[in-house]
Parts: sequence; C-alpha cells; structure tokens
Amino acid sequence: MGKGRFEAFSDGVIAIIITIMVLELQVPHGDQLSSLKPLVPKFLSYILSFIYLGIYWNNHHHMLHAVKEVDGKSLWANLLLLFWLSLVPFVTAWMGENHFTQWPVVAYGVVLLMSAISYTFLSRTLIHNHGKNEKLAKAFGKDEKGKLSMLLYVMGIIAAFFSQALSLTYYAIVAVIWFIPDRRIEKVIEKEL
Amino acid sequence: MGKGRFEAFSDGVIAIIITIMVLELQVPHGDQLSSLKPLVPKFLSYILSFIYLGIYWNNHHHMLHAVKEVDGKSLWANLLLLFWLSLVPFVTAWMGENHFTQWPVVAYGVVLLMSAISYTFLSRTLIHNHGKNEKLAKAFGKDEKGKLSMLLYVMGIIAAFFSQALSLTYYAIVAVIWFIPDRRIEKVIEKEL
Amino acid sequence: MGKGRFEAFSDGVIAIIITIMVLELQVPHGDQLSSLKPLVPKFLSYILSFIYLGIYWNNHHHMLHAVKEVDGKSLWANLLLLFWLSLVPFVTAWMGENHFTQWPVVAYGVVLLMSAISYTFLSRTLIHNHGKNEKLAKAFGKDEKGKLSMLLYVMGIIAAFFSQALSLTYYAIVAVIWFIPDRRIEKVIEKEL
Amino acid sequence: MGKGRFEAFSDGVIAIIITIMVLELQVPHGDQLSSLKPLVPKFLSYILSFIYLGIYWNNHHHMLHAVKEVDGKSLWANLLLLFWLSLVPFVTAWMGENHFTQWPVVAYGVVLLMSAISYTFLSRTLIHNHGKNEKLAKAFGKDEKGKLSMLLYVMGIIAAFFSQALSLTYYAIVAVIWFIPDRRIEKVIEKEL
Repeated sequence: MGKGRFEAFSDGVIAIIITIMVLELQVPHGDQLSSLKPLVPKFLSYILSFIYLGIYWNNHHHMLHAVKEVDGKSLWANLLLLFWLSLVPFVTAWMGENHFTQWPVVAYGVVLLMSAISYTFLSRTLIHNHGKNEKLAKAFGKDEKGKLSMLLYVMGIIAAFFSQALSLTYYAIVAVIWFIPDRRIEKVIEKEL
Repeated sequence: MGKGRFEAFSDGVIAIIITIMVLELQVPHGDQLSSLKPLVPKFLSYILSFIYLGIYWNNHHHMLHAVKEVDGKSLWANLLLLFWLSLVPFVTAWMGENHFTQWPVVAYGVVLLMSAISYTFLSRTLIHNHGKNEKLAKAFGKDEKGKLSMLLYVMGIIAAFFSQALSLTYYAIVAVIWFIPDRRIEKVIEKEL
Repeated sequence: MGKGRFEAFSDGVIAIIITIMVLELQVPHGDQLSSLKPLVPKFLSYILSFIYLGIYWNNHHHMLHAVKEVDGKSLWANLLLLFWLSLVPFVTAWMGENHFTQWPVVAYGVVLLMSAISYTFLSRTLIHNHGKNEKLAKAFGKDEKGKLSMLLYVMGIIAAFFSQALSLTYYAIVAVIWFIPDRRIEKVIEKEL
Repeated sequence: MGKGRFEAFSDGVIAIIITIMVLELQVPHGDQLSSLKPLVPKFLSYILSFIYLGIYWNNHHHMLHAVKEVDGKSLWANLLLLFWLSLVPFVTAWMGENHFTQWPVVAYGVVLLMSAISYTFLSRTLIHNHGKNEKLAKAFGKDEKGKLSMLLYVMGIIAAFFSQALSLTYYAIVAVIWFIPDRRIEKVIEKEL
C-alpha cells in the first residue's frame, strides 16, 4: 500500500494539533502590556510543545522518507502516536494555566513519554515490514537517542514530585538532543544513493 | 475524474474531526490529580470516538485504494459520510459530559449507525461505477462485517433504554470487529497483483 | 505555475470551514431528548451550510479539473472566495441562534451572494488565462446557473425584510439547482477526451 | 529530500491559522444590524490578517516553486515562520477587541516583524542550499521589498506609541506593496524556461 495518504493524514493531524494549541492562549481583557503577564507561563508551555511537535513532524518526515510501503498494523501504530500527540494541547494548557505545578508537570511528562513509546513502536513496526537488513533498520540502529529520551522523560516525571524546575530541565534536554538534526537516517540514505 | 482531491479532502475533514474532539476536554481549574477525575468519562468517550474515526479513515483508505475513479454521485455520497462523521465530536462530548446516560448514548449510536449506512451507500456507489465483476465488488462481497455492524448499532440503540452499559458493549464490539484488520480488500488486491 | 498546491490549500481551508461549523453546536447541559430541542434551528442552519460548502467544494473540484495552470491573479481571486466562505460559519451560527430572524437571514444571504460573485470572478480569471476557445470557457458557456443563483440570493435578501421563510426558500432553491450535478464541465471534458 | 510534505504541512498550518481566526468573531447575542456594530474593529483586524496570511501563502508558494530540495535546517526555519504566523490569530483578536489601542497594535506589529524576519531567514537558508548562482538567488536579488517591509513594521511599532492610526497605515502599506504581485521570481522562472 502506498504511503501518500498515510503521510498526508499524519501531516494534517499534526498541523491541526500544533495550531489549535494557540486557541488556549485566550485573549486578555485589558489592553496594557501587563495584561499579557498572566499569559507568560502559558506562552512558555506553548513554545515548548510547539518545538516537540515540530521535532515529531521532522522525525516522522525523515522516517517515512526511508519507508517504501505501509501495512494495516503501521496505520494503527501511527494512529496510536497521533492519539498521544493529540493530548499535547490539553496537558500544555493545564501546565501553563497552573504555572508548572506538580501534577500538570507529571501529566505533561506522561503524554510525552507515551508519545515517545508510540513513536518507537511505529518505527519497530515499519522496520519489521522492511526486513532487518534494510536501509531503515540500519538508520535506526540501536536507537540510542530514542532510549535516552524515554529515560529522560521517566526521570522528569519522577523529579516532578520534588522539583518541577528539574523536571522541566529534563524535558528540555530531550528537545535539545533532538533539535540537533538527526543525521542517522540522512547519512544512511546518502550512502546508499 | 481523478481520486486525488477526493482523498485529500476526506483526509482533511477526518483529520480535523479527530483533532477538534480534544477541544472538548476542557482544562480543569485545579492542579491536583483529582482535578482530572471529572474528565474520566469524557476521556473514555474521546478514546472510543478516536478509535471509530481511525477505523473509518483506515477503511476509507483501503476502499479508495481499490477505486480507479470517482463521479459526482460518489462525491455526494462521500460528503454524506463526512456529514455524519462531523457530528461525532458533538455526541461524544454530550455522552461524556452526562456520564453515559440514556439519550446521549442513543444519540451516539444513531450518529454511528448513520455513518455506517452512509459508508455502505458510498461503497455501493463506488462498486456501481466500477462494475459488478471488478476488484472492488469482489473485495466487498456480501459485506457481512458491515451488516453485522449496523445490526449491533441498532441493538445498542435499543439497549440504551434499558442498560447503557449493555449499549456501550455493543458499540465496543463493533470497534473490535473492525480493529481486527479488514483482510477482505487486501486479499483480493494481493491475489490480482 | 502548477495547480497542486492551489487545490491543496483550497481543500484545506474548505475542509476546516465545513468542520469548525460543528463547534457552534454547543453541547447542551441536560441529558434529555428535549435538551436537544433548542439546537434544532442551529442544526438546520448547519445542514444548509454544509450543503453549500459541499457544492462549492464539488464545483471548485470540477472547475480546477479543467484548468491547466494558475497565475498570481487567480491565487488572489481564490483567496477572495475563501474569505467569503470563511464567514459562512459565523452567519450560520448567528442565523441558527436567532431562529432565522430578519437581519441574520439577510447577513446569511449577503455572505452567500458575495461567495457566488467571488466564484464567478475566479472562473472568469481562470477562463481569461486559458483563452476563449478553451475547454473551460466552453464548459462555462453563458453560466446561466451562476447568474440564476445570484438573482435568487438577491431576491432572498430582499424577501428577508418581509418573510424569512420565503427568503430561506430562495436560498434552498439555489442549493437544489446546484445539487443536481453540474453536467456542463463533465460533458465538455468527456467530448474532448 | 523532496519538498512535497514540506509544502503540504505548511499549507495545512497556514490554512488552519487563516480559518481559526474566524472563531474569534463571536456570534453576537442580539439579532439586529446594530448587534454587529461591536464586531466592526474585530472584523477589520480579521480582514487585515487574512490579507497578510494570504500574502505569506502566495510568497511561500512562489518561493518553494523555485526550490528543488529542502534540508533539516530549512525545515526548522520553516517551523520558525509557522510559529510566528500561528500567533497572528492571537494578536488579531487582542487588537480587534481593544479597538486598536497602543499595546495591542505594538504586539501586532512585533508578530508581523518577527514573521517577516523568519521568512527572510527561510529564504536565505534555501538560497544557501541552492548555491549563489541559482535561479532562486537571482530571483531574490537584494530583496528590497523584504527589507522595506521590515523597516515599515519597525516604523509602525514605534508610531504605535504616538498614533495608532499612523501605525496601522504603515502596516497597511506593507500589505499593499506585497499585494502587487511579486514579479521577481516569476520573471526569472519564465526567462530560464
């Protein structure tokens, strides 16, 4: 089965998720610069989530580039990923509205962790379809970056019960390690071309 | 007429429907774990509807894969399906907010039943265009799964007047029978290739 | 310039417009069948607008099918059409909430009229690019259906000051005459193929 | 890497941004013509922002047309542009709700300025990938229009502290100079074909 609609549907859902988050930035009643002050934590949450969704879109884009075809199981693995990503606007707003207190920070971490697990599951499903010796499998290798991300999310969730600042630091490190472009897949593609 | 825009438009509408449902999960005021408790029924409704829309997208994807061209009548049959699917967020929210009481559960079932009828109508229209002996007609065969779904929805709607739990069980069975991948079309395609 | 992104962007905007209208159907507080009663006029407005947007999408689809390329002027003519269509959810909700009283019915008619004028302007721009003797020009011919629609909208707007029922009848006639598939373009395409 | 999904994702996000702005036009309670009066400033803001987003979409469309491939850095430059554009609905609503007072007008200008800077950054990144002698680089030349826009935004932001009317005039001039179709890229493309 072709991957065209698979990509188009994923693009659509991620584009909508990334955009409706801004609806949570409710317009303040006053017209002073100070009227924007209560929005600062919401705005910071928005930036963080925008970066995460951008990373997921970029990685999804790269991964599917190396994929030739998708089957029914991959469709569901992809929907599982989109389901967890669809909860990002909810936890982003909850965390922003409550100024990064314990439970919202935990919930944010859980949604990110579940998204990361779903992404790994999707990549495993796609690798399985393409065979162990294929381009895609080589590109992922041991997936150290993915494993490190999940570890950092777990650490962040645990840290939230003691220090939310530490927790957010862990989450931010994940963003940083992915922001540095993922050369893995690109390299393997280049080599083989 | 080509099927490219037909697919793209359907993908867009389904992607939006699946995503705006999350807007109904209003951010709670408190920041405790218990603040999330009132959201549990809404969240369960959301998961159920997400699965249904995922199933529709998957089936739509498979069906259109076997289709060569679409005509004006198919466009309208597709819009009828999208119309009923567009009501899913509304009945999902109504059912979730009222903790699965009688009328919201009935309304949910009616929208699902109408969506199923519209989907069958769309598939009949497409089969009609492609001729009885075509791949698509073979793939659908007697459409036992589709007929069983409609029967289960009707039973679910009737059951809602006595026991909403029974009603939801019927609805959930439909999700389960479709979640098990639809090998019908895939098989026929594989055979012919 | 290719028409791919032109179509994709239009599809995206129309898909979003058609879908966000459902957000105006606010979930009622009660869980009785009677709780849905106040939503009936909103729901009827929703159906009417869904049909109009479906018609626009279908016609847009047909028209672009006969088009080879688009230029900068067509892009703006298309944006003008999308602008007026983007106001449909607003007037639909206003009309539904006020149970089809005078000014909301007038506003609804004005938005539909402006959309029709923009569509005609877009078709003229595209025909101009393709030359008088081209397929597209033949397909449109004297555009009697388009002219009749605009006349009916004007009559509907005027009628709204005396009888809103009459007004809605005029608007509904437009939907009916377009719902009957537009064979004009299809015929010409078929002939030439 | 192909540019297909890059374009599709950008189209999706811009289509959603341009459309959700209309959600800020809340349906008035009354049903008189005068009930629409308080919406006039919001409506004017909506029109202005619709035009800006239309311009960005058109320019993005043109620019990508001259591009052969995109790399990881371009993906992020594009996301930065989409981030700033995603804030347009927020500042549009804030400005409209407060009838064009000082700080909302400043905020509107800042978001437009940051969008313009991001767009320039994106174009530089794409030109860098394609080499100095390429079509795209020639098409942009010294980018006088882009530089003038940024200067006008800065002037508009400063003016907002003295006269918001002057400020809006500066912003409107930017829209006008871009509305006049950008022949730069089209010309170079035509020459080379």
